[in-house]
This record gives sequence, structure tokens and C-alpha cells, in this order.
Amino acid sequence: MAAEIIPTENTSQDDLDPAFALHRGGKLEVRSTVPVRNKDDLSLAYTPGVARVCTAIAENPELVNDYTWVANTVAVVTDGTAVLGLGDIGPKASLPVMEGKALLFKQFGGVDAVPIALDCTDVDEIVETVVRLAPSFGGINLEDISAPRCFEVERRLQERLDIPVFHDDQHGTAIVALAALRNAATVTGRELKDLRAVISGAGAAGVAIAKILLEAGIGDLCVVDSRGIVHEGREDLTSIKRLIAELTNKAKLQGGIEVALEGADVFLGVSAGKVPEDVVATMAPNAIIFAMANPDPEIMPEVAQKYAAVVATGRSDYPNQINNVLAFPGVFAGALSVRATRVTEGMKVAAADALAAVVADELSADKVIPSPFDERVAPAVTLAVAEAARRDGVARI
Amino acid sequence: MAAEIIPTENTSQDDLDPAFALHRGGKLEVRSTVPVRNKDDLSLAYTPGVARVCTAIAENPELVNDYTWVANTVAVVTDGTAVLGLGDIGPKASLPVMEGKALLFKQFGGVDAVPIALDCTDVDEIVETVVRLAPSFGGINLEDISAPRCFEVERRLQERLDIPVFHDDQHGTAIVALAALRNAATVTGRELKDLRAVISGAGAAGVAIAKILLEAGIGDLCVVDSRGIVHEGREDLTSIKRLIAELTNKAKLQGGIEVALEGADVFLGVSAGKVPEDVVATMAPNAIIFAMANPDPEIMPEVAQKYAAVVATGRSDYPNQINNVLAFPGVFAGALSVRATRVTEGMKVAAADALAAVVADELSADKVIPSPFDERVAPAVTLAVAEAARRDGVARI
Repeated sequence: MAAEIIPTENTSQDDLDPAFALHRGGKLEVRSTVPVRNKDDLSLAYTPGVARVCTAIAENPELVNDYTWVANTVAVVTDGTAVLGLGDIGPKASLPVMEGKALLFKQFGGVDAVPIALDCTDVDEIVETVVRLAPSFGGINLEDISAPRCFEVERRLQERLDIPVFHDDQHGTAIVALAALRNAATVTGRELKDLRAVISGAGAAGVAIAKILLEAGIGDLCVVDSRGIVHEGREDLTSIKRLIAELTNKAKLQGGIEVALEGADVFLGVSAGKVPEDVVATMAPNAIIFAMANPDPEIMPEVAQKYAAVVATGRSDYPNQINNVLAFPGVFAGALSVRATRVTEGMKVAAADALAAVVADELSADKVIPSPFDERVAPAVTLAVAEAARRDGVARI
Repeated sequence: MAAEIIPTENTSQDDLDPAFALHRGGKLEVRSTVPVRNKDDLSLAYTPGVARVCTAIAENPELVNDYTWVANTVAVVTDGTAVLGLGDIGPKASLPVMEGKALLFKQFGGVDAVPIALDCTDVDEIVETVVRLAPSFGGINLEDISAPRCFEVERRLQERLDIPVFHDDQHGTAIVALAALRNAATVTGRELKDLRAVISGAGAAGVAIAKILLEAGIGDLCVVDSRGIVHEGREDLTSIKRLIAELTNKAKLQGGIEVALEGADVFLGVSAGKVPEDVVATMAPNAIIFAMANPDPEIMPEVAQKYAAVVATGRSDYPNQINNVLAFPGVFAGALSVRATRVTEGMKVAAADALAAVVADELSADKVIPSPFDERVAPAVTLAVAEAARRDGVARI
């Protein structure tokens, strides 16, 4: 009876690709967690029994968290404008990624997640739409919304809603990068305050990494976009890049990536731009290179390893994979478990610290970050985030 | 780690009620239908493999129905303004009903359904919101939206979207009532064209029952609202009631329910109003009484049985339960299975006919409609609706 079992003629050749075969019919389902075997079950789960539960919530709306799935359920919201490295492919084409995200939420965090791909790209419309559907969810995970709109969408939703709103492309990436960088610093006998870092890319991830590194006490930092180093003398900066220019680049550098990287300790790549080997060669001794562009790193690991003490990528086929799945399931599981009203900077840093600590005893240049399948990760991040929420006064229970 | 296992102090006494105990933590979960055991699985279900599927959908958006869960997934959308008999209790308090609906969709129709309770009641806002989130779903089930707004919300969404939009309080009830009435007519040796029916209630269900009975060829029909019989001489009619007045009441009756019911063959109650026994007593011989108000029927079955040949209610503790669950799972399963662009009148009548036919061989005054747990129902309705969609030219596959 289910729609997915009916074959259609226009797609069978795709199923020679195992990714298409796996995706046939989608990757998710909604299931009941209670029995509905007979009239008696139905009279509790539905009318007339359900009316008593509805009445109780109408009298005390907070009870929605006790007697519905809301408290453990997240909307994975996108407008399809910045999907993976594919760009603006629209809401429908983004859905396989959102479904993937939802299954990772469940698998790693025990969190129920629902893909919501929106047929609008205007900031006002996205914000209004999410505000209106928010009663159905305990949290909002924003996903693959292009910069700079993503910053305003997130900020305005955080102002309007009293549930966690978290743009994973920003903060998930930032948390995992910070965790890996802490461990990379330790492996090379330094602290964050000793390091000068260069971020290539000033989109969602680049901006968020800059913010979390500043929060965590990085020594110095400069951000490079497609027009070069973001500095206060530039006339072409968006408001968020202007803020970045004010907060970074103590050394007042101007120019391209080759100026930024000369003598730098850390390269953090979250762009599509390639970095030539002769530029990589000018970095400081014991350099740390996280070339996170996917699937094509800004610097291939084989090259990076000639010049760096620690190398990480976004790929699963090299050591040290910087993968958001290490953060977002635990961040939301932790925030939801204490019904946090938002995700604070403290909760993000706590998530990074907990993530870094998981591999503290096994630390090496090839293991500055746990594997996505390390079962210690999600519980550690969940607990740390819940505790930080309580410390920061945003927990409701 | 899941939020629902953390106890809170303010609710424990409620759990002495088994309905509250069953609802703790909600009634739904989202689960993966594909394995994610290791790196290889992840590289197909998520990056990098998922990118190939996204690209294919971007090139041919129809493929979203093959490679995501969309083709088998329905949004159960409410604004919480007309929930059960409880009225306007708001979106949060409506969620236990929407979750119940979702689990019935899955249990009886194999359809995945997601509760979406909206924090807005303005028709424009509801319509815009649903249009924006529509790419994520294969159908929209509207639920518990108060009349007369529900009519305009449904009409405008049907105009804007190319997926089924179905207000269950209207059409689900109408389909099941028509099925039961066909069989009740057979049991009493008559056809629909021989019957004069009275509908008590001109809200969502009353209007939809009136429309489907006209479509099915009822002999005559009058609708009674809180101010009496809906007739063309009244000055206080909304546009939908004015249409009802034009299409019904050949006998040109004016007055209250006592005028309408005198000599009537059929009473269909979808209101909260009680009907006195002396009025029931004036109905024609072999009367048919469907007193569907829940939990308190307009005419209690013990009274109705004194005057009627066939009695039905909305309750599970009497014979002949008129329960929407007999219709909506199969209606959507059938519509989704052929990717219907909408639910036509022909599909609704086909659903009613299929539902009536399920008990054709067992027909009696106490069995004019199958039990909600009759396993023959959903497959029969699904098939009939799919075939009718093809006949009506709204099937895409």
C-alpha cells in the first residue's frame, strides 16, 4: 500500500548506483511508540481519552513537553539555498540531505527530527514560517541556508522563540573544529593563545569558527574571503564581515591568502578555494592544517602532511574527520533534556571541550578528534551541554 | 538521553489516569528505514553519496517522490481552533490529537504523518505557511480548523498546491456517514433517492455531509444550525450556508429541528445540540438515526432505538461507530500511491462505496459500517481511491 513500492519507469537505471538504491522510498518513517491493538488502546491514544490530555495542556501549556513528542523533536529547516557544495538547488532537491540529518539526529542523539524544506528564501518569510510552526517542535536546526541570510534568520528566530535555534552549518562545524584544534594544539605542545590562525571562507562556517575561536582565546586570527583578507580598510564588507574585521587580524594584514598564511600556525579551510603548495610551505613550523572543504579539500592531505604536524579534513577516508555529526546530536539532546530556551556560547564551548576530551587518552597527530561512530561522543556532549545550560541559566528543568 | 525519561514534579499525579500514562513522552517517533552502521553506510545515506541523489532531483524535481519519504508523507496541519468537542484550545494543546491522527495514519494506512500545529489563525497566514512547507510533504491533512475558515483554507490550498489537500473533519466524516447511510438504506429496503435526511450542524462536517449526500443522489435534505433550518429566506447566512440553502430543502421548510425532523427518514447529527425524545418520535417509520456528536450523542442510542430501524453514533461502545479512521488512512494511501494531484468528489464517493461494500455480506441493522479494526477496510479504500483518481485524471503515475 505504501507509495514507495510502486515502480516508476523513469528511475530504474539510477538504481545501479548504490546511493540511489539506498534512497529509494526515502530514509525515514514515523512510528507509533504506543500500542493501538484494540478499542481500549484507541480510546486512550485517541478519543475520548486524548481529550483529557489536551485539556490539561490547554490549562498548563508547559505540559506539552510531558505528554507529546515535542520535547524531544527538532525541525530540520532549510530553504535549499546552500546545500552541501551544490549551492542553491531548491527545497525538494535538498530533502535527501535533510532526511540524512534527521536519521543522524536519531541514531546518535536519540532525537526525533523532521525535515522541513521551505519554498521561500526571503528572510522575513522564513522567519515567520518557522515561528508559526514552532509549537510543534522542541528545537529548530537550521540547515544549508546561504550566508549572509542565515545569520539574520538565526538571530531573529532566537529573538522570537524560547526554544533552541541552532544553525548547524555555523555552530556544528565551529564546535568540532574547536575541539580538534584544542587537541591539535596539545599534540604540538601549545595552547590556543599561542596560535595565529587563518580561516579561509567567510560564509556560515567561517564566521562561526572565527567567533568560537575568539571566545576560546585564540592568539590571533584572520579571515580570508574570495577577495582576500577581511580587514577594516575594505569597503565591500557585509555587516557580519565588518564585525569580523573589527574582532580579528591584530596583525593588520592586507592581501591574499599568501599574505595571511605566511608564518601562520593554523589553516582552517571552509571554502572551495584551493591553496597552492608553495603558499602552504610558508606556514610556521608545526603547522596545523584543517582543510575541511568537501569532497575536495583546499589542500590535499598528501600535500598538507609535508608541512604540517596535524592534518584534518571533512572526509571519512583520511584521519581526523571534522564531521558535524560529532556535535549536533549531542548539542540538541543536551539542550532538549533540560528544555533549554536557547543554545548559549557556553554550551557550544562545553560541547567542544567534551568532544576533545573523549580522545584525550588516545591523543596523537592522527587522532585529534573521535570517529563519528565512537559511542562515547554523544553521551559526553549531551551531558556537557545540559550542564552548561544549567550553569548559563537557560535550563527550564 | 531522550528528554522524555526525565521526570518533572508537576505532572506525576496525572499519571494515575491511564490516558496520561500512555501519553507520557508522546506517541510518535521518527526512525531511519536504512542502516547506518559504519562509514560506508554513512557515505551513501549522507555525504558524499547523498549529493548525487540531490543533483538528480534538482535536474528532475519529480524524482523527489522516488528518493525521499515525501511521496508517502502527510502533514497533519491544525491551528487548534476546533479540537474535538473542546473548541479553540490552541496549537500546543491540540498536539495529542494530531499525534493520535499521525499514529492512525501509519497503523491503518501505512502513511507517515507529521503533526504541524500552527501558531496562527488568520486564513492568509495559514495558507501561506502551508504553501511554504509543502515541498516537504506528499499531502496535507487539515484537522480541527474551525468553520467557516476551514472552507476557505482548504479551497485556497487546493488552488495553490498540486498535492492532495483534505480537511478530514469535513470529508472523512462525510465519507464514513455516506457509507453507513448506503448500507442503512439497503438494510431498510430503500435507496438514497427515497430518503429525506436532516443534518443537525452546519459546521465542517455538516456542510461536507450535505455536499456528499447531494453528490450521491439523496432524495431531499435539510440542514439545521443553531438558529434553525438553513433556508433561502434567512438573512444571517454565511456564503457557504447560502450555498447549502440553495442546494437543499426542496420542501421549503422553515423553523427548528422539530419542523425538520417531522416525517424525516434520516437524522445525521454533527452538532452538540440535543434532540428531545418527543421530536425523535415524529420521524417516519423505519427511521435512520446517526447521532455522531462525541462523547454525548444528540440522541442517546437507547432512545433512538425506540423509533429507528438503524442507529449509529461516534462512540466505540455502541454498534455502528461512525469513525473517520475508516476513511482518511485509505484515502491518503490511495491518493499518494498514484501521486494524485488532488482528492476529487469521485474519489470520496469511491471511498464511501468501498467502505460500505466491506460489510455487504454481513449487513444488519447493527452492522452498517465495519469496525475500525477490520483489516479489510484500508486496503479496500486505498484501491478504490487510487482507481478513482486514475478515472478522474488526477493520478500522476
